[in-house]
Amino acid sequence: MRFTSEQHLDDGVLERAFTLGEIPGILWTPGSASASAPAPLILLGHPGGLHKLYPRLVARARHSAAEGFATATIELPGSGDRPRSPAAEQARADLRRALEAGEPVDEEIVDRLVLPLVDKAAPEWQAALDALLALPEIGGPVGYSGGVIAIGVRLAVVEPRISAAVLFAGSFVPRALFEEARQVTIPLHVLLQWDDEGNDRQRALDLFDAFGSEEKTLNANMGGHTGVPQSAGDAAARFFTRHLS
Amino acid sequence: MRFTSEQHLDDGVLERAFTLGEIPGILWTPGSASASAPAPLILLGHPGGLHKLYPRLVARARHSAAEGFATATIELPGSGDRPRSPAAEQARADLRRALEAGEPVDEEIVDRLVLPLVDKAAPEWQAALDALLALPEIGGPVGYSGGVIAIGVRLAVVEPRISAAVLFAGSFVPRALFEEARQVTIPLHVLLQWDDEGNDRQRALDLFDAFGSEEKTLNANMGGHTGVPQSAGDAAARFFTRHLS
Repeated sequence: MRFTSEQHLDDGVLERAFTLGEIPGILWTPGSASASAPAPLILLGHPGGLHKLYPRLVARARHSAAEGFATATIELPGSGDRPRSPAAEQARADLRRALEAGEPVDEEIVDRLVLPLVDKAAPEWQAALDALLALPEIGGPVGYSGGVIAIGVRLAVVEPRISAAVLFAGSFVPRALFEEARQVTIPLHVLLQWDDEGNDRQRALDLFDAFGSEEKTLNANMGGHTGVPQSAGDAAARFFTRHLS
Repeated sequence: MRFTSEQHLDDGVLERAFTLGEIPGILWTPGSASASAPAPLILLGHPGGLHKLYPRLVARARHSAAEGFATATIELPGSGDRPRSPAAEQARADLRRALEAGEPVDEEIVDRLVLPLVDKAAPEWQAALDALLALPEIGGPVGYSGGVIAIGVRLAVVEPRISAAVLFAGSFVPRALFEEARQVTIPLHVLLQWDDEGNDRQRALDLFDAFGSEEKTLNANMGGHTGVPQSAGDAAARFFTRHLS
């Protein structure tokens, strides 16, 4: 991990851009974090495209920093400045065509789009976690928040250093991931936008049901994909405070 | 309304038993409530039987008092010391028989059990509200919390003085109430226990979907009817603080 720039935000949060091999990322640490008082860490998921998403990501990171958490994110494979995969681009185009035609989306398209992404992204987040936890100002425990839910499911299964996750039921989930969901045992807080235009509500409820975790909460609210109300964001933050502090 | 006893709890909350005609009830007011600073009011619903439920009710009332709310409850028709209705007792016995036999519960039994209860209880809660709001130490706004969800739905439709409600999707809902649910427009916070043995989960989700409110949140958690986690109780309390303060 190599830091490429740093700046102090006006609330004392230190924002550092980094690269991990070819992967760009951002780390935010609260003013209070130091080698003597390392901060717990939230891995901040997203749908891909750090530049475009920066305003939303930094807002969430500052909110978390106020609670004493460090926050880090990395770019997804095939998003932002990272090289495109022709197969993923084809799957994305097929998905867009189905959605625009108002057709049901084939399982096969979802599999082609999401499964290779999950297979590639999950080890990258794990490598980022290795590098981040080696920093003296970052401690545990670690939470994963939001982004492509299939990546969150995979990480919750394969990465024992993640001890709680906030998942956003707002993207396509391959059938194969349901089996993995049954293996998840960490506490989960699942956000669902009831009228999410890009999301199959019943499938989201089925996925929530499938999670093996003894402690899981579904927080469903009115509105579309980007309409998560402030109160739901606050509830997710409190979930992390309960489980990572 | 006639007060029949009063005691100060150790946290300064004033607990007063009252009767409203033949109906027994309890009012809790925070130590801070006075004619000059009247407290907002939460009507505390329950499944019937004030004596038996007292420990749970007083715990919720004290929690609300700490947030500055007065809380009041009245006995349900046919429960506690109130006269039984032979028709309701018959419906209750029929329901118990169906549940013990593991049979699906006939709509007809639910209708016989719940509809007359709602028709009788809702005007009683409205009469209680008249009397409570006439006390100088009680102001508005008013919330309704928990209890038989069908009574909450009816009150949310017919009682304009109720400005927010926490509903517990944990009891039978006659089909006829779905039409009323569509007329509800106040902010709602709906609790659902995912594995509630006495509750049809899909029907609870359908009811949540039916509510006409623009602002409604479903907070679903693992466990059975009585297993609502502390964090869900806290989230419901914050909902009232947002909407009644």
